Order: sequence, then structure tokens, then C-alpha cells
Amino acid sequence: MDFVKMHGLGNDFICLDHFLFPTGMDYAETAVQLCHRQFGVGGDGLIVILSSDVADARMRIFNSDGSEPEMCGNGIRCFAKYVYEAGYVQRDSLKIETLAGVLNVKLEICRGAVHHVTVNMGEPCLDPIKIPVLAGTDTALNQKLEVAGQEVIFSAVSMGNPHCIIFTEDLELLPFETLGPAIEKHPLFPRKTNVEFVKVDNSGEITVKVWERGVGPTLACGTGACASVVAAVLAGRTGRTVIVHLPGGDLKIEWQEGQQVHMTGPAVCVFRGSTLES
Amino acid sequence: MDFVKMHGLGNDFICLDHFLFPTGMDYAETAVQLCHRQFGVGGDGLIVILSSDVADARMRIFNSDGSEPEMCGNGIRCFAKYVYEAGYVQRDSLKIETLAGVLNVKLEICRGAVHHVTVNMGEPCLDPIKIPVLAGTDTALNQKLEVAGQEVIFSAVSMGNPHCIIFTEDLELLPFETLGPAIEKHPLFPRKTNVEFVKVDNSGEITVKVWERGVGPTLACGTGACASVVAAVLAGRTGRTVIVHLPGGDLKIEWQEGQQVHMTGPAVCVFRGSTLES
Repeated sequence: MDFVKMHGLGNDFICLDHFLFPTGMDYAETAVQLCHRQFGVGGDGLIVILSSDVADARMRIFNSDGSEPEMCGNGIRCFAKYVYEAGYVQRDSLKIETLAGVLNVKLEICRGAVHHVTVNMGEPCLDPIKIPVLAGTDTALNQKLEVAGQEVIFSAVSMGNPHCIIFTEDLELLPFETLGPAIEKHPLFPRKTNVEFVKVDNSGEITVKVWERGVGPTLACGTGACASVVAAVLAGRTGRTVIVHLPGGDLKIEWQEGQQVHMTGPAVCVFRGSTLES
Repeated sequence: MDFVKMHGLGNDFICLDHFLFPTGMDYAETAVQLCHRQFGVGGDGLIVILSSDVADARMRIFNSDGSEPEMCGNGIRCFAKYVYEAGYVQRDSLKIETLAGVLNVKLEICRGAVHHVTVNMGEPCLDPIKIPVLAGTDTALNQKLEVAGQEVIFSAVSMGNPHCIIFTEDLELLPFETLGPAIEKHPLFPRKTNVEFVKVDNSGEITVKVWERGVGPTLACGTGACASVVAAVLAGRTGRTVIVHLPGGDLKIEWQEGQQVHMTGPAVCVFRGSTLES
């Protein structure tokens, strides 16, 4: 099996190109095998590149546990870079079909190579039923949650996938490894949730630690960066253009009034490979 | 840069074949870059396949932190499989030059593929000066050590690299993540040490958890399995042929009276790859 290994801010993916030749492969099972760091290729997830009837290309993405998230902000930048550099699309903007709908991306191209990708991540959704989160109000902003023996204040936002944002003054003091998995699997979130712990540095910068649903701690989560900025803007904590510092590097998130959320960040190809029989 | 990714019991290596065309590459620096799980290829270590003036081939091995251990029991099985399957040697036994001297290995070959490799790991060394360990006796067997607020009893054995073996009744209760790094860097071991926590299951089986020098917890350590059996035999805890259960799988270790230590285990090729520019 041929693949390309890519990453967006250290959120790393094994990419299978089935654009021209689709297969009946069990991608969930393949993801579990290939993503194993020692016995497989190693990766946070598997991205499958497919053709689409409704867009320029279709992205399927699977976590290392075989689960299929609706979307992944770092993954779609890698996907867009791959699709352009493979020659499947020859414009600097493309439409990508995902489980979260058709998304538009814009490429920064230099000498045939894509370095940064801006993704229109769509409208944030605050409707508790759609997120989904069990909340008795119109939105799930600034809600109390009892978890792991603590009370935390969270805001739930969907960017096509659910996010639970918690503002904190000190990311180092936070019991990240305890709170992350406990909130991910809390019954308040019927489809589980990604969890973002956010420190506001100033009105144009935030620092975020992400516990990714089905994965655990990761170097970066694109949809998590967007959801964090949405929550920060709604709480009056930042302006509408924010640099998000993640362990793997920086993303620029823009959410102009009445507009959709735009995320700009890098994508990198690391190596090309072929699995062997023994 | 072309490479093959291999593993021995989940102890995984990026293998660079410089047998025919040696380079002036800084392997320590290359190991640090390539071994990174997200930004590089990912691996516990880098193995370099070189020609030798004194043996059939020469193995250099580097940990993910760039340090160069004398030898690695899982690595040498991968190395032997690679050298045979690449056609550099066409016998079922070969001599391999390492920093721990020239070692003999024997291959189990089926239809041109190597499945198991028996490695003559040489004589265990109990001389404290050579291990090296700062001990005031002829051997460093059953010595007391104050570390991380605890007293432990250890035996130090060299299999070309230093090992500190600690017998325990319960591997689960052990504060592995605290004791491992504290013993690794304890001043008693001038060149640091690998640390093995050993539970004796019966006279023919032991279960071992390894904290590898310069790496941390790993799925398996071949020299560590050998050193553990040597310590177990000397303490009268097992017979001389022992199956060693490691998190990544099993090794068979034989140490007949007055003989050298022989280790038999699997080696697997996972994928072939080529690094990309961006």
C-alpha cells in the first residue's frame, strides 16, 4: 500500500490517494493498523483522498482508534496541499467534500508547492441540540460542569464537530491528563467532545492545549483553534483576528462579524512510503 | 533520503542502507530529526547499515536523542534480516561489527525471508569497572541503592551496554515512571544505565518492564532481556533457558553453563520510504 505522510503543526496523517482508483477497503480497520507508532506507519490519523460528485475532491478522515470525525482543520490543509500538488486541481482555491459539508480552501502557492492553506471553516454552531450538548438554554456558553471532582465553566461550540472550551489563567497548573478524558466522555456530550483549555494572552493572541476526541493530547487541533476563538470573541476576551499558539505551532484565525471562520496555517509533506509484507 | 522501517517486538527502527555508498552524514543529528514521531519518520532509533573490514557488515545504532549505544538486541535482529534480504550476505549465519565487538547471528530463513534471528550476545560482564557501576565489590549483584526516596536492591550486568536489574513481586504496583529515569541517571552509573524491572513467573519464564537509556519506556529491549536472565540465573531464580515476556512480545534467552548468551526473536519490515522536501 502506497501512502504519503504529512503534518499540519505536528498533527500528523497517513494519506492514501484513492482519487483515481477507489477501493472497498475497511478504512477504520486500516487506520488502527497503520496509525500504530511502533507496529505500523504511525500517525494521529488516516486521510483518504477521494473524488467527489459535489466538490473538487472528497476527504475522509479516521482517528487512530478507527473513529471517523466530521472534519479536521489540520487534516484538511494537508488534504488540500496533496490534491493540488498531485495535479487533481490546478486552481488556488478548491471545494472539499467532508462529513461536515463542502468546505472552501485557498492555497498560498510558491513554485508549484503549497505552503499555507486558508480554510473557510464555515459558521460556528451554538445550538446545543446540534453540537450536541445537553444544555437547558439556547446556547451552552458559560455553563457549569461537575467533572473529576471539580467544577469548571465551559462553553460548547461546534465547528462541524463538538468542542468544549474552558478558559484558564494557568495552563501549567491545570490537571490536563485528568480533566481531558473525563470531559471528552462526560454524559453531557452524547457524541463525546474535543476539549480545549484556553489562556488569553492579549486581545490578539491565545494559547491553547487540546485534548482531542478519540486521540488524547495532540500538538494542534484546527477546529479546536477556531472554536476557542469563537468562544473568546463571544466572551469579549479577544478581537476577531487571533493568533492561536498551539504546542505544534501557530494558526491565524479570523472571524469577522456575520462572516464564517477562516483558519490559515501550514501543511508539510514528510515522506512517501510503501508498506511491506513482513 | 531512502529508508526502511523495521521493528523487533515493537522496538522500532529507521534503517539507512549505506552499505555500498557510505556518506559523511551526521547520524546523531539525523536520528534526532528522523525519529520524531510527528515531524519526522518516527522511531525508537536509527540503524545504519555499513560495510565492515572485520565482519560481514557493520551496524551503527542511534537513539532518538542522538546518543549512540554500544549495541541493541532488537536492532541487531532487524539489521541481520535487512543485510540478508538485501543480498549482501547469502549464508544463514553472519558476523556483525558493533561498538560492543563482533557478534555472531543465525537466521531462520523461509522462502528467502528471515523470520527469526538468534544472536550470540557474547559473555555477560559482571565487572563493576567495565559495566560501569561504582560498586565496592567484585560484582554489583544484590546491591542497595537509595533512589527517589526509596531503597531498592539491584544487580548490574553488562551485555556490551549497562543494565540495572531489579526483581519485584508486582510490576503493576511499581512506580515505573519515577524509578526508571531516576536510576538511569543515578551517579552510581557513570555512563547512565538501562533499567529492567523483573517478575519471575516460574523457572522458565520471566516478565520484564524496561526503561531504556536515552529513550524511556519501550516495548522490548533485547540486551535487557539477556541481562535479566543472567541476573535471574545467578540469583537461582530461573533455569538457563527462559522465555522473556516483554510488552511487545516474547524472546527466548539461553545461557548454558560456561557459554555465551543466545537470544532468539522476530524481526519485521513494516514499510519502505523516502523523505520529501516540504
